[in-house]
Amino acid sequence: MPNPTAAMLVIGDEILSGRTRDANMHFLAGELTKAGIDLREVRVVRDDPDAIVAAVRALSAAYDTVFTSGGIGPTHDDITAENVARAFGRPIAVREDARAILVAHYAGRDQELNEARLRMARIPEGALLIDNPISAAPGFSIENVHVMAGVPAIFQAMLASVLPTLTGGAPLLSQTLEIRRGEGDIAGPLSDLAERYPDLSIGSYPFIRDGCYGAHIVIRGSDGGRVDAAMTELSGLFPA
Amino acid sequence: MPNPTAAMLVIGDEILSGRTRDANMHFLAGELTKAGIDLREVRVVRDDPDAIVAAVRALSAAYDTVFTSGGIGPTHDDITAENVARAFGRPIAVREDARAILVAHYAGRDQELNEARLRMARIPEGALLIDNPISAAPGFSIENVHVMAGVPAIFQAMLASVLPTLTGGAPLLSQTLEIRRGEGDIAGPLSDLAERYPDLSIGSYPFIRDGCYGAHIVIRGSDGGRVDAAMTELSGLFPA
Repeated sequence: MPNPTAAMLVIGDEILSGRTRDANMHFLAGELTKAGIDLREVRVVRDDPDAIVAAVRALSAAYDTVFTSGGIGPTHDDITAENVARAFGRPIAVREDARAILVAHYAGRDQELNEARLRMARIPEGALLIDNPISAAPGFSIENVHVMAGVPAIFQAMLASVLPTLTGGAPLLSQTLEIRRGEGDIAGPLSDLAERYPDLSIGSYPFIRDGCYGAHIVIRGSDGGRVDAAMTELSGLFPA
Repeated sequence: MPNPTAAMLVIGDEILSGRTRDANMHFLAGELTKAGIDLREVRVVRDDPDAIVAAVRALSAAYDTVFTSGGIGPTHDDITAENVARAFGRPIAVREDARAILVAHYAGRDQELNEARLRMARIPEGALLIDNPISAAPGFSIENVHVMAGVPAIFQAMLASVLPTLTGGAPLLSQTLEIRRGEGDIAGPLSDLAERYPDLSIGSYPFIRDGCYGAHIVIRGSDGGRVDAAMTELSGLFPA
């Protein structure tokens, strides 16, 4: 049975302007690989209502699960929640269980639960809350879309809540061989190897180090014996 | 006149599996902002022919300029060139000027211009070559799509060749104020400010440092006087 598929939607002008370097995509990619879920596509869009709606609809329809990051805070540029609701034609309003979480969090602090912060309790109808152990304001899951924060520490905490609820596949195993030759010298035998192991993914990732060319050859698959066999052949083709 | 728009397409299983952390998106975003070109969307897709064709067509139709990274080397998993050609219905074959570049590069080295390396001289009909001062194998530009390498040093060198050929807009100016208060305390006055400066983009990017909440407020616009004025008001609202 093929592994379940996933996509990610990163929302935020700050990524596209170069101000902030996204860190959540790389983290999510590693976690999904460990869980046996294939991350197939990532899109990064602006803080723009129509761009968010279009991307949510396209990715939700094409993949088993979608993760979003960013745009769920209290400020005017946080427009993810209402546009995910709009993508699914759901009303959105402050929900009592979400408000109660914020009330409890801000009670006894020197921060007040003002109108701006209350925006973070707006949840689309029918959504499930995602726990935020760091700053309380919850994410939410609606249809197959999990809406999470952009701040990496909070994104990671929310992902830890969501991942155990998903059905994974066979974890992808991988082995890597570093070959200190130009990719062009490796390409022919490597292509033959890939043809003989059509059930494995064999990738070549070139690098330049100290002025010399090399490549990391990564062999991936869910059957450890097959990965071992292909790696043994590869090592024989290109002895260190 | 609004600034020209751009999108990026990152091609490669290694990004989506979490093996490699993409560095080109952040670099491109910064360079385009300096050039006055608005990066509107980024997509990351697998080494999959149909995924590449669909993304190239969608982004090429929606934005003024598209940059791709990855998949133009000599190995079997380098399938970008033929699928960009396919996206535009163009034939692709080894082209003499591209072959000549490779012949000159490999002459006198201990690497041979074998069949695998010759794949890197396959250029879609009607494309312009993009200079690769590092490892010779060229990128190419076809329609409004610039096809470049994934290795960051080569991506950056190719971008340096392409950028001067593009028409930019007014460079985006930005000023940042760090406010050591929770976003929820800032949100109300910030929203008012944003309404009074509709020509500017005002973003709030929260952080957690030493257990305390804060936010960077970034004011962006192409009119330096307006950015100054808004920043002066903002500083008055939230004195350090």
